[in-house]
Amino acid sequence: MTAQQSPVDGDAPDSGEQRTMNYGKENVAVYRTYATPLEDVRTIPESSFDGRDNVLFGLDVRVQVEGEEFLPSFSEGDNTKVVATDSMKNFILHHAGEYDGATLEGFLEFVGLAFLDTYSQMSAVEVSADEIRFDELPVPEDDGDGYEASDLVFRVSDNESGYGSISLTRDDGTAVITDQTSGVTGLELVKVKGSSFTGYVQDEYTTLPEREDRTLYISLDIFWSYDDPEDALGEDPEQYVPSEQVRDIAHVVFDEVDSNSIQDLIYQIGLRVLERYPQLASVRFEANNRTWLSVRDDLDGDASVLREPPAPTGFQQFSMDRGDLDEQ
Amino acid sequence: MTAQQSPVDGDAPDSGEQRTMNYGKENVAVYRTYATPLEDVRTIPESSFDGRDNVLFGLDVRVQVEGEEFLPSFSEGDNTKVVATDSMKNFILHHAGEYDGATLEGFLEFVGLAFLDTYSQMSAVEVSADEIRFDELPVPEDDGDGYEASDLVFRVSDNESGYGSISLTRDDGTAVITDQTSGVTGLELVKVKGSSFTGYVQDEYTTLPEREDRTLYISLDIFWSYDDPEDALGEDPEQYVPSEQVRDIAHVVFDEVDSNSIQDLIYQIGLRVLERYPQLASVRFEANNRTWLSVRDDLDGDASVLREPPAPTGFQQFSMDRGDLDEQ
Amino acid sequence: MTAQQSPVDGDAPDSGEQRTMNYGKENVAVYRTYATPLEDVRTIPESSFDGRDNVLFGLDVRVQVEGEEFLPSFSEGDNTKVVATDSMKNFILHHAGEYDGATLEGFLEFVGLAFLDTYSQMSAVEVSADEIRFDELPVPEDDGDGYEASDLVFRVSDNESGYGSISLTRDDGTAVITDQTSGVTGLELVKVKGSSFTGYVQDEYTTLPEREDRTLYISLDIFWSYDDPEDALGEDPEQYVPSEQVRDIAHVVFDEVDSNSIQDLIYQIGLRVLERYPQLASVRFEANNRTWLSVRDDLDGDASVLREPPAPTGFQQFSMDRGDLDEQ
Amino acid sequence: MTAQQSPVDGDAPDSGEQRTMNYGKENVAVYRTYATPLEDVRTIPESSFDGRDNVLFGLDVRVQVEGEEFLPSFSEGDNTKVVATDSMKNFILHHAGEYDGATLEGFLEFVGLAFLDTYSQMSAVEVSADEIRFDELPVPEDDGDGYEASDLVFRVSDNESGYGSISLTRDDGTAVITDQTSGVTGLELVKVKGSSFTGYVQDEYTTLPEREDRTLYISLDIFWSYDDPEDALGEDPEQYVPSEQVRDIAHVVFDEVDSNSIQDLIYQIGLRVLERYPQLASVRFEANNRTWLSVRDDLDGDASVLREPPAPTGFQQFSMDRGDLDEQ
Repeated sequence: MTAQQSPVDGDAPDSGEQRTMNYGKENVAVYRTYATPLEDVRTIPESSFDGRDNVLFGLDVRVQVEGEEFLPSFSEGDNTKVVATDSMKNFILHHAGEYDGATLEGFLEFVGLAFLDTYSQMSAVEVSADEIRFDELPVPEDDGDGYEASDLVFRVSDNESGYGSISLTRDDGTAVITDQTSGVTGLELVKVKGSSFTGYVQDEYTTLPEREDRTLYISLDIFWSYDDPEDALGEDPEQYVPSEQVRDIAHVVFDEVDSNSIQDLIYQIGLRVLERYPQLASVRFEANNRTWLSVRDDLDGDASVLREPPAPTGFQQFSMDRGDLDEQ
Repeated sequence: MTAQQSPVDGDAPDSGEQRTMNYGKENVAVYRTYATPLEDVRTIPESSFDGRDNVLFGLDVRVQVEGEEFLPSFSEGDNTKVVATDSMKNFILHHAGEYDGATLEGFLEFVGLAFLDTYSQMSAVEVSADEIRFDELPVPEDDGDGYEASDLVFRVSDNESGYGSISLTRDDGTAVITDQTSGVTGLELVKVKGSSFTGYVQDEYTTLPEREDRTLYISLDIFWSYDDPEDALGEDPEQYVPSEQVRDIAHVVFDEVDSNSIQDLIYQIGLRVLERYPQLASVRFEANNRTWLSVRDDLDGDASVLREPPAPTGFQQFSMDRGDLDEQ
Repeated sequence: MTAQQSPVDGDAPDSGEQRTMNYGKENVAVYRTYATPLEDVRTIPESSFDGRDNVLFGLDVRVQVEGEEFLPSFSEGDNTKVVATDSMKNFILHHAGEYDGATLEGFLEFVGLAFLDTYSQMSAVEVSADEIRFDELPVPEDDGDGYEASDLVFRVSDNESGYGSISLTRDDGTAVITDQTSGVTGLELVKVKGSSFTGYVQDEYTTLPEREDRTLYISLDIFWSYDDPEDALGEDPEQYVPSEQVRDIAHVVFDEVDSNSIQDLIYQIGLRVLERYPQLASVRFEANNRTWLSVRDDLDGDASVLREPPAPTGFQQFSMDRGDLDEQ
Repeated sequence: MTAQQSPVDGDAPDSGEQRTMNYGKENVAVYRTYATPLEDVRTIPESSFDGRDNVLFGLDVRVQVEGEEFLPSFSEGDNTKVVATDSMKNFILHHAGEYDGATLEGFLEFVGLAFLDTYSQMSAVEVSADEIRFDELPVPEDDGDGYEASDLVFRVSDNESGYGSISLTRDDGTAVITDQTSGVTGLELVKVKGSSFTGYVQDEYTTLPEREDRTLYISLDIFWSYDDPEDALGEDPEQYVPSEQVRDIAHVVFDEVDSNSIQDLIYQIGLRVLERYPQLASVRFEANNRTWLSVRDDLDGDASVLREPPAPTGFQQFSMDRGDLDEQ
């Protein structure tokens, strides 16, 4: 095959009428102690999660702003309209003390609106954050043999955490949400048996053996968008989708399903998420395959020895909407 | 300001008629020894770079494929059309031995075309790579006091390196390049004096002092697209833009210009790149500010003591095309 | 003060009669499925941990070998006695299938003895490992509203994990344990209130304000050694100290104690560890201070806003033995 | 073989009469602009390095202090003698402005002495640092076709860099250097051909094929100690060993020697270092093997395709002194 190389417009957003022009601040870690608890969320069969105390509420925030009035800072070195990114950091930290809600997405909208309200030269703002998650730790109860969660000491979690992004545009003097994504990222899950990978293309480039039963190791990010982005803010907790519950759906479906590929698995997780949350418009996955390689399968029973795979990593990106649910 | 939250279509690409559906392999590091040298590139005043030997030609490749025929692998666990990502890795490694060109972009197109040629179920393929760069090292000349580059021993560079991305789509039986980006990423540069940051917005969130002369530390990625993507492949070396030369332009412009912001600086670099290479349609920047904080400026002369800035990092994203050049 | 620079013997172990000479393999990740469960461990008031199923038993192993017979591989390029480190990796993977015990330390001794037994040119071997920890995940019980741990799906934990190191030397034909360390590393804990830092030296270099109540964030590694190293192997589970229990002691003591420094805190943790485990000879700490900086303390009640500290990090290293316990 | 487990004294330094007890600050990055140039260093045949301008002089410093007077901070929460680690950071930053020498090691001794001089409760101090290296960049000469190093713009290097460590102890009112190490760390070198690995032990655990000619990739840290530690400070530049020269020796010896192992290679490098610098007492190596795996050797000439090795990494640790030189 020969490529017929017709002139292309390259990186489309760059060469059309509108250039890429934005700036901002990232890696703004902010911690709020004794934030408003998240309560009254609707529970689902796959999860015992029904709220969180928010004694520690941590976010790693990124803000990106746009506006034609910033052009002279590039083309003429004129900073008249430039809000220093150091000031943006201060702005975010200050507003973390003003926010009286209980969700990551709610804070993002709160601070995004405040940027547009304060700085007329900003025509659009995108605010996103990774949750910095803190795990409860069991300590002995005062009177008895049991354990209860400490209300003072928490583990800083390096495992999966929540994610959110809100884009706001100034439209005729009013801020409008133009994009909204929520998510849970960094799931790393191993299913010790009950997964296969068979029936794929066999050709001269194929060296991977088919496996009727493999120990499957996936890393997974799950993202979702609401029909009504206002539901993402958590002001009506019944309509809010907590990332902890979506994480638990992934655990439970992985436990239940004997999948023939990661593709097969994430489709099942997606169906379950869309079933549980009619308020969602779509769900999207970014998956990686880190499945170990077998070293010894000559041991008794299901026991085996495995090793790390080499660095090249398979990935899948897939989105689903309510249409996929209807087809079932 | 209150957000008037009209229903939005969420993550647009996901909720329209076309879903996100792709998979592939990333982190495929491949090394080719004694590849074809890159010769006869046009030189520019800012750079002494005029080619490279390619004794070591290293790439970290990512391939992503699309096609409606992959849907059953998600929705039904049917792998009939699935090319295992392990086979994709083998495919890339094999074709690194078949490629007889001298550029990163040329290899990406070569292997992308081969994917489309081999697997009819793939309707589009995106292949990208980070160059793994090797530096020449001086060793004593056989007969004399001087030094020459060793042709055996090289340093594995952890500094800036080249980048490329090619998107190919099957269109009526013929592969068409639908997107092309080249780049140099990971520049980290300090200018010890001769940079200012003044005249920006002063308000209640401003704590950063204005500085008439600061030690400016930037990290920088530069990307470019050609008018004719065929020029990116390097088959006509006169038309090829080597990432080493663009890097050197950045060095030289930074040295020459007394900028009032990173915005100001990258605009000047962009103008110079567009001037030097009429074959380019656009240039795009992703910059980060890592400027140190002053600790002592009570020392003799220009001497000072500085320390690391905190983690929150300012960034700029900006694209330019030939229209910007015309306005000068 | 002037340094009176008497000649020193430099890096003592290098310039004496015995040189540094060893080699080995590191980053050997090995996974054993359905390993022997750890059962019948003694419980302590601070922890509900009483064993683990070891459905997934993962270690990241490092082996280092010594022996005078390896000298010609350095001085003469003679590899006759060299066991390739690739073979060492294979050796470790193979023996992971032979080990029938339930502990990290037990496996280290098992494989270390096997090295000495197999290769007479090795006079000493040091084997260490970081545990790769897998968390149980709750899934709905088959018949009821409750949740139970899945026996199929596990989370790959990026939080704290176990550690062990065993040194074996060939002594007159018999292998002797010459060093043994166990540990739990990577604890990252925040106590939201109930910690102070006051009364320290105030001088011209002091800018840190005293704090009667701070939100304290520590990272912590804890190591311990047994009186009898055989107790570290876990063959008598009553004498074995599980890293999960030591971790829980750290949680509980941090929750209980109102400390005036990290020094103060780790001393209290050390006393508790030595109290709970009479079989231990010593306990050692490596701590880091990552305490956030206050941004706003003008909020209602105990609420506050904090931010990340800069990169320079305070650390403490401290060891304790039973003598410290006696002094209480 | 069975281990005869005699009671051992565990981690020796912890269980004897002297406990581990220290604290300090690490990751103190400090930058000094327009520091004193390093001039008049003696040159060697393997290197053109004869000094550096020190326009940018960057160090990542770690300080660790000891003293019995710190015990109450652990055992009683009494901070009376505690110098806050935040103050230590300020101390280091301040003294970077006072230092008028030209070397990393000189600064370490300078600030170490200042700590002992200022704080009588410190009985010993260990100060170490990684150099933060800045590369010169060529820019066009003002009048001509050539290029010269910019005196304003520098690249922040992520490649190899210098290292130093100095230990000082208070001895009868006078500070004495008790340990001194200099080094260059982070060399990553590939030799495309002219290296073998043959003749090693072949047994049931051996799967690695012998190779008469392999593309060898090593990472390497080199450390050295002076006979007289005062020579490490650089006050007599003729006696100073610059890390750039030792790096260049490694390049040249690797280029010259056809080695049969990394062990063989580092021995040759060590001999050359000891030959060139009679003022050194010893040299020590920490090496890693990252050699790629062959994928295709069916190409024309010496060309081949290779891929990344798996994660398990072979290492070597080896020290040499002047006795090794005598045996040649």
